[in-house]
Amino acid sequence: MAFLGDLLTTVADRGRALIGFERTGSGRRRPLADLCEDLLSGRGEASGMALAQAVLDEWDRLDAEGRLGFFRLLLTHFGPDHERLAAALEAYREDGDAGPLHLASEPRRQELFRRLNLAPGGTRVLVRMRESLFTAMKEEPALAAVDADFRHLFASWFNRGFLVLRRIDWRTPANVLEKIIRYEAVHAIADWDDLRRRLEPGDRRCFAFFHPQLIDDPLIFVEVALTREIPGRIDDLLSDERAVLPATSATTAVFYSISNCQEGLRGISFGNFLIKQVAEDLKRELPGLDVFVTLSPVPGFARWLGRALDEPGAIGLSEEEAALLRLPQVEVAALDEAGRARRDKLLGHAMADYMLRARSPAGRIVDPVARFHLGNGARLERINVGGNLSPRGLREAHGVMVNYRYELADIEANHEAFASRDIVVASSAVKKLLRPPAG
Amino acid sequence: MAFLGDLLTTVADRGRALIGFERTGSGRRRPLADLCEDLLSGRGEASGMALAQAVLDEWDRLDAEGRLGFFRLLLTHFGPDHERLAAALEAYREDGDAGPLHLASEPRRQELFRRLNLAPGGTRVLVRMRESLFTAMKEEPALAAVDADFRHLFASWFNRGFLVLRRIDWRTPANVLEKIIRYEAVHAIADWDDLRRRLEPGDRRCFAFFHPQLIDDPLIFVEVALTREIPGRIDDLLSDERAVLPATSATTAVFYSISNCQEGLRGISFGNFLIKQVAEDLKRELPGLDVFVTLSPVPGFARWLGRALDEPGAIGLSEEEAALLRLPQVEVAALDEAGRARRDKLLGHAMADYMLRARSPAGRIVDPVARFHLGNGARLERINVGGNLSPRGLREAHGVMVNYRYELADIEANHEAFASRDIVVASSAVKKLLRPPAG
Amino acid sequence: MAFLGDLLTTVADRGRALIGFERTGSGRRRPLADLCEDLLSGRGEASGMALAQAVLDEWDRLDAEGRLGFFRLLLTHFGPDHERLAAALEAYREDGDAGPLHLASEPRRQELFRRLNLAPGGTRVLVRMRESLFTAMKEEPALAAVDADFRHLFASWFNRGFLVLRRIDWRTPANVLEKIIRYEAVHAIADWDDLRRRLEPGDRRCFAFFHPQLIDDPLIFVEVALTREIPGRIDDLLSDERAVLPATSATTAVFYSISNCQEGLRGISFGNFLIKQVAEDLKRELPGLDVFVTLSPVPGFARWLGRALDEPGAIGLSEEEAALLRLPQVEVAALDEAGRARRDKLLGHAMADYMLRARSPAGRIVDPVARFHLGNGARLERINVGGNLSPRGLREAHGVMVNYRYELADIEANHEAFASRDIVVASSAVKKLLRPPAG
Amino acid sequence: MAFLGDLLTTVADRGRALIGFERTGSGRRRPLADLCEDLLSGRGEASGMALAQAVLDEWDRLDAEGRLGFFRLLLTHFGPDHERLAAALEAYREDGDAGPLHLASEPRRQELFRRLNLAPGGTRVLVRMRESLFTAMKEEPALAAVDADFRHLFASWFNRGFLVLRRIDWRTPANVLEKIIRYEAVHAIADWDDLRRRLEPGDRRCFAFFHPQLIDDPLIFVEVALTREIPGRIDDLLSDERAVLPATSATTAVFYSISNCQEGLRGISFGNFLIKQVAEDLKRELPGLDVFVTLSPVPGFARWLGRALDEPGAIGLSEEEAALLRLPQVEVAALDEAGRARRDKLLGHAMADYMLRARSPAGRIVDPVARFHLGNGARLERINVGGNLSPRGLREAHGVMVNYRYELADIEANHEAFASRDIVVASSAVKKLLRPPAG
Repeated sequence: MAFLGDLLTTVADRGRALIGFERTGSGRRRPLADLCEDLLSGRGEASGMALAQAVLDEWDRLDAEGRLGFFRLLLTHFGPDHERLAAALEAYREDGDAGPLHLASEPRRQELFRRLNLAPGGTRVLVRMRESLFTAMKEEPALAAVDADFRHLFASWFNRGFLVLRRIDWRTPANVLEKIIRYEAVHAIADWDDLRRRLEPGDRRCFAFFHPQLIDDPLIFVEVALTREIPGRIDDLLSDERAVLPATSATTAVFYSISNCQEGLRGISFGNFLIKQVAEDLKRELPGLDVFVTLSPVPGFARWLGRALDEPGAIGLSEEEAALLRLPQVEVAALDEAGRARRDKLLGHAMADYMLRARSPAGRIVDPVARFHLGNGARLERINVGGNLSPRGLREAHGVMVNYRYELADIEANHEAFASRDIVVASSAVKKLLRPPAG
Repeated sequence: MAFLGDLLTTVADRGRALIGFERTGSGRRRPLADLCEDLLSGRGEASGMALAQAVLDEWDRLDAEGRLGFFRLLLTHFGPDHERLAAALEAYREDGDAGPLHLASEPRRQELFRRLNLAPGGTRVLVRMRESLFTAMKEEPALAAVDADFRHLFASWFNRGFLVLRRIDWRTPANVLEKIIRYEAVHAIADWDDLRRRLEPGDRRCFAFFHPQLIDDPLIFVEVALTREIPGRIDDLLSDERAVLPATSATTAVFYSISNCQEGLRGISFGNFLIKQVAEDLKRELPGLDVFVTLSPVPGFARWLGRALDEPGAIGLSEEEAALLRLPQVEVAALDEAGRARRDKLLGHAMADYMLRARSPAGRIVDPVARFHLGNGARLERINVGGNLSPRGLREAHGVMVNYRYELADIEANHEAFASRDIVVASSAVKKLLRPPAG
Repeated sequence: MAFLGDLLTTVADRGRALIGFERTGSGRRRPLADLCEDLLSGRGEASGMALAQAVLDEWDRLDAEGRLGFFRLLLTHFGPDHERLAAALEAYREDGDAGPLHLASEPRRQELFRRLNLAPGGTRVLVRMRESLFTAMKEEPALAAVDADFRHLFASWFNRGFLVLRRIDWRTPANVLEKIIRYEAVHAIADWDDLRRRLEPGDRRCFAFFHPQLIDDPLIFVEVALTREIPGRIDDLLSDERAVLPATSATTAVFYSISNCQEGLRGISFGNFLIKQVAEDLKRELPGLDVFVTLSPVPGFARWLGRALDEPGAIGLSEEEAALLRLPQVEVAALDEAGRARRDKLLGHAMADYMLRARSPAGRIVDPVARFHLGNGARLERINVGGNLSPRGLREAHGVMVNYRYELADIEANHEAFASRDIVVASSAVKKLLRPPAG
Repeated sequence: MAFLGDLLTTVADRGRALIGFERTGSGRRRPLADLCEDLLSGRGEASGMALAQAVLDEWDRLDAEGRLGFFRLLLTHFGPDHERLAAALEAYREDGDAGPLHLASEPRRQELFRRLNLAPGGTRVLVRMRESLFTAMKEEPALAAVDADFRHLFASWFNRGFLVLRRIDWRTPANVLEKIIRYEAVHAIADWDDLRRRLEPGDRRCFAFFHPQLIDDPLIFVEVALTREIPGRIDDLLSDERAVLPATSATTAVFYSISNCQEGLRGISFGNFLIKQVAEDLKRELPGLDVFVTLSPVPGFARWLGRALDEPGAIGLSEEEAALLRLPQVEVAALDEAGRARRDKLLGHAMADYMLRARSPAGRIVDPVARFHLGNGARLERINVGGNLSPRGLREAHGVMVNYRYELADIEANHEAFASRDIVVASSAVKKLLRPPAG
C-alpha cells in the first residue's frame, strides 16, 4: 500500500519551479490574452505546462480591476467558435447528429481551463480564480456564463470518485489543522486548545474530504461526537468539563458541525457523500453504533418567525402568544419559570410549523440546512428548544436546534418523498408538536 | 509531506465492499438499463455510490454480446435529451446564447459516466469499459459516438495536472513491476532478471505516470539509459555484459523505450509530458546531463520501402540498388563485407528519404514514432543502420534505428515548423544522407 | 500516523556519503588497529561517525586472511582493560560493590562495536562482520570470546521491542521479495511465479520481522496457509491447482514454513515472538480462525531411525519390521499396497517413539524443530506419514511430517512442562501411536 | 522507499492491547516482585510480552512511595547473582578469562530491563521509569547503582546509529509540535503563533532526532536561522517584524536554540551528532552556506562574576569598575550613554576572562554550554554584549551572549586541544578582549 503513499509526495511538488524543458521560449512578457491564445494553439501542445504557468503567473499579478477585465475577456473572446457552431448547426439540421453540435457549442474557455490545469498547482489557482469570479459577478451578472463553465468542469474534476476521506486528529499536520480552525463555520473554534478538545478525546472524530491536487486543503469536514443518547444541547457536546466516553461504549454518532472549506467550489456538493461515508466508516470501526444523527442549527427560523408574527394569526397564535415570542432577549431572561416554559412550548410548536408547513414562494421548504439533510434522505427526529443559547443561536433560531436522523433502510424513501413530493419525513414526536393549522 | 501519503491509502480502499448507508434499497436485481436510469434520476442523488456499484457489478457479469447490447443502449437511449435540445435550439435562434445549447446537446451518457465514477474503483472499470467498446466498435462503427464521450471525459480526468510521475526501480512493489513486464511494447522484457537489469544498475532509470485512481497501474512509462555518447545500437544498451557507468559521469540520457499501458486510454496523450518531465527531473538530479535523445524504432520503414521498391525509380535507386535492398534476410547474411557495406549505405539513404521526403496521401510524414517525437519538438539527429538486428527490428525497419534529440532552446520552433509547415527538422548529418530527389 | 513513516526514509539514507562536518581530518589511510583505537579515544568523540565509517570501509576491503587478523586483534587488543580490572577487583574485595567490576570487565570491543554503529549503515556491516567471524571461528575456536560480545550486543539491539512485523504480499517491493525467495529454507521457492502463488491468493499470508536499521532485509519470516482443516501433506498446500478459499471461511491458520534470514544474527531468537504475534494479528483480522497449527518437517528423524535400526530391538521392532524400514526408496516404491501400508504404520510408531521417548546424550529431545515449537509451548498434535514425498522430505524423515499446535490456554503450561521437566506434551492420537517401550 | 515508511505504522501500534496468544495465564494480579522474577524465569520465555506488559501495568499504578520501593527492590534483589559471581571470580583467578566474570557481574536488572522492553511501548515506559528514579535518587543516593544500569542500556539503545533526523516544520503533526513548544528550553515559545514564526518562514529550520520507538516524541531538537551575517542579538532573530531572507541567499546558519526533550535520557549525548548532521544536511540543501555558528547563552556567567566581584582584584578590576558591574539592573538603566558603554566594555572583558581563564575547582571551564560546544570542537567566535536583554538573559549573563563557530577543518584539532589540554580555542577578536591577568 505504501507505494501509493509516495505518489503524492510528487503531486505535492506543486510549488517547484520548472527549470528546463518546459519554459516559454522567450523572456519577454506577453499580454494575458495572447498567452491564452497561445495556450490554445499549437504552441500549447509543445509547451503547455510552461505556457499555463505563464498565464497563471500573470493572473496572480492582476488587481481586482485586471481580474474583472480578464473575466470579461473569457466571456467575450473565449466563448464558442461561432463559425464552427454555425457549421455544426447546419449539419445538425441535415443529419440530426447532435455530437458535433455539442462539441462546437463548447465555449473555448473550457479547453483553456483544462490546459491551465497543466501547470504545477494549476487546480488550486483555478479554484481561487472562481472565487474572484464571484466577486466580479456581483458587478457584472453576465459573467455567470463563465461561472457555468467553471462549475461544469469542477463538478467533473471533483467527482466524489476522486475524493479521499481522511480522519483529522491531533496527529494531523498543523498546516491542515489551522484550516480546520479557519473554516469551521457552525460552532467557531476559539484556538488550538479548543481545537484539541474537538479532536483528541476518544469520543470525538473529525473527517474531511481531500482532493489529491489540493493536498493540504480540506474540501469539507464534519465533526462527530460519540454519545450514548441523542443530544439536545450543543453545550453538552462542547463543554470542556464533560466526561469522556470510551468509544466502544458509544451507541450514537452525532454529526454536530459540517463546514465547506472552498468558496471556489461553491455549488459542488460533497456533504451528502461525506455524511454517508463517515457513517459507514464509523460503523465499521465501532459496530456498537446504531444511531446516526445530527445536532443542527436552524438558521432561517428566527427570520421566518419574525415575519410570521407580523401577520396576525398566521401560524395560529393568539396575540398574547405572539407577544411572548416577540419579547426581546433581555426580557425573556426576566421571565419567571412558568413564563419561560410557556414560551419554550410555543417555540416548539412554531418550529414544527416552520419545518413541516412553511414553504418558500417557490414552494420549497425554507430552511437551507433542513433542505440539505432532508434532501439526503434524513428524517426530522427531534426539536430541541434551548439547544443553542449562544448569541448566534438565539439570534438565528431563538436558541432552538434540531436533530436529523439518518437511517439506512429509509434513506431512499425519505429522499424520494422529499424530492418528488415535497414531503418532510418527521418522527411522530415532531409531528405531535404541530398544532392544528391556523385558520 | 507524509500526511499526503496517507491520503492514497484511502483511495486504495477501492475493492472494499459498501456495508451500510450506501447500498441499493432492494435486493432484487434490476435490468441494467433501469439501473442506469435510476442513477441519473433523483434516486442517484440519494444512493449514488450504491447504484453506481450495482451498475458496474452488472456490467462485469455481461458477456461480449451483453456488452454490445449495453453500448447500443448508450448510443440510442443515453444521447441528448431531444426535447430539451429542441427548446435550446429555439432559444438560441432567439437570443444567440450558446450556453444552454451546449448543455442540452450533451449526451446523457456523459453524466451517466460521471455518476458511475462514484463507485469505489469506478474509474478503473470505466477505462476497461472503453476497452470493450473498441472491440464492439469493430462490429458496429456507429458506436464511435459513444467513444467520443468517453474520450472527452477521460481527456479531462486524466489531464496531466492530475498525473503523478514516479520513478520505477527495484524497490517498486512487485504488482507494479509485473505490469512493466507486461506492458513493455518496444523491447520485450523476458523475465524478472531481465527487468532487474533495466531497473537496478546505477545508469538506468525508469519513470511512469500514474493517476491516483489507478494506483498500481501505470499509464505510460519510459526507460532511460545514462551514457557518455549517443548510442546507435540497442544491443549496446541492453547487453547484460556491459560495464555500468556511474550516473554522475553520464552526459547523455537515452530514452530507449516508451510504452503506453492502458488500451482504454488510447488517444489521451501522455508521452509528450512524460519525456519533458523526466528530462527535467533527470537534469535536476544529474546536472552533468547535457544531451537528451531517444534511440527509436522506425516501425513503418520496411513497409514503405517495400512499396517504394515496387515503383521503379521511385526513390532514385538503380535497379541493381533496388535488388540489393530487396534481398531476403538469409541472402543478406550471405553477402560479403563490401556488399553489406554497400547495402547499409543504401539503407541510410533510403531512411533519410523516408523521413524527410515521404508523405502519406494526407500529406503527413509516414512514420508514427517520428510523428510523435517531431510533433513534440524533437529533431531527427542520426540514422543508425544496424541499430536493431532482432527479428522484429529487421522485419520492421531492416535493422535501422534513429535518434531524436530534445533540445530545450529549439523545441517550440521545431514543433511549430513540423505542426504548421510540415517541416522535419533534422541534423545536417541526416540531411547529407539525402540523395538528390529522384527525377 | 504518516509522520512516522517518513522517519524511516531518513534512516534509509544509509548509503549516502558524508560530505562535510563528519569526515576524518586527514586523507591518508591509517592502519585498522589505529583507527579502532582512535574511535575509542577522544577523537572518536569529535569525529565518531567519520571514524566509524573509515573503519568499516577498511574492513570491507579486507580479504579472508585480513579479517582473521582483525578478529584476532579484537580478541587480543580489545579485551578488558586489565589495569582497570585489577583495580576493580581490588575494590570489590574491599567494598563488595560489583558495579565497577562489571564495567571494568567489559571487553573494550563492546564499546568499539557500539561506536562502529555510528556510521551510516553500521548495523548492517556489523551483522555481516559476525557472519565472517563464524567462518574465522572454524579455524580459530578461541574467537568465540569475540562472538560472545557480538551476541550480547545484538540480543540487546534486536530486542523484540525494536522489531516491526510486516505483512509480505505481492505489493511488497521487489528488493524485499527477492530476499524471501533467497532465504526460504524449508520449501524452496522456484521462481517469481512460485513466489506469487505463496503471497497473492486470498488464503495465503506471509509475515516478517524487520529492524529499522536493516530496512529491506527481513530477519525472519513465516508463511501461512488458511484452511478449513489441519493439513497433513505439504503438497496439498503448495499445489498450484488447489482451490483458493475465501479467507473469511478459514478456521485454521497453518504455519508451514519459518525461515531465519540473517546468518549474522544466529542465536538471537525471533521465531517464538513471530509465531505468536502473527497468530494474534490473524485472529484480529479473521475472528473465525480457531486453530493455529504448523505443518513441520522433522529433519532429524531419518538419521535417528537409521541408528536405531542398527541396534537390534532398540525401538521394539522385530527384525522383519526393521528390514521394512531399512528398504531403500526405490524398493519402497515397488512394495504392494499392503506392504506400503504396513511400512507407513511402522513409520508412525517410530516417529512417536522419536518424538516422545528419544533423547540426546544430554537428555534433550533430539529434533531441533521439535525443540523450537515445544519450547514455545506448542503441543505435538499429529503425525503425518507421507506428508512430504519430495527427495528432501524422504531423505530427512522418510516423508513424515508433523503438526504442532499452539493453543492459548496451554502455552505456558506446555512450555513449563517441556522446559523444566522435559515432558513432550502430545495429543492422545500421537500418544496412541506409541508402542509399549522396547523391552 | 515507501515500504519502509509503513514499517513504523506497525511500531506505532504501541498502545494496542494484546488479545490472544500473549497474555498472562491467570487473571489474578501477582506482586510486582514476583512478576519480575517470572519474567526473568522460563515463564518469561513463553510469555515474555504478556509478562512484561503486566509488570509495566503494575508499575504504572504505583504512587511515589511504591516506586521508591520498587527501585529499592531493583537495587537489592536484582543485582548480580552472587553465587555465580563468586564462581566466576574463582575461575578468573585460575584462568584469567574475564568473559565469565563480566557476565556474572551483570546486575540481573539489566536483563529485566531488556525483557520489559518486549511489551508494546516498553521503551517509552522505561524512559519514564528512569525519570522517576531521578526523583527517588534524591532521597536515596544509593539508587545511583540502578541508574548506572539504565544509563548503560540506554546508551546502547539510543546509539546515534538508531536515531533518525527529521525536519520539523509547519506540516509536522500537531502532537509533535506541541512537544516542541513544551520542551523548548532556551528561548520559550509563547504559543502556536510564536511556534509558527520559528518554523514557517523560508529562512528558518528546525530539526530533531527521533527514535523509532518514541515515535512522536523528539529526543532533542535544534532551531536554526539562516542569515547573511553572524548575529549578535537574539531579538534580531526572533522579532516578528524582521524581513524574511530567501534561503538560497543565506550564507550563515545560526543554531540559536538546542533543547533536550527526554529527562529520562539525561546523560545520553545527542547534541554533538545533531549539530553536525544538521550542518551537513543544510550544506547539502543550500550549498551557499559557509558559516555554521551558534548564538548561545552563557548561563554561568553572572554567578561567576558575582563571586569574582566579591574577591577584590580577582579579575583585575579596579574597585570603581567592580562597582559599575555590581550595579543592579534598575540603576544600569539609569546610566548615561558613556556609563553604559563603559560598563559594556567591562562586561566584554569579564566574559573573555570567564571563558578563557576561569576554571572550576576541578580545573574545568565553568560554563556548561561552553563545555558542550568547545567539547564538540567549535571555537569561541565572538562575545556579544547586549545580546539578550530578556529578564533571564540579564539575570544569567548580564545580557551577554556568545557565538561558537563550527568549522570543518578545525573540529578535531579544537576538540583535541580542549579535551586533552584544556585549551579554549577562540578567535583573535575574543582574545583581544582579555586584559592582562590580574596581578
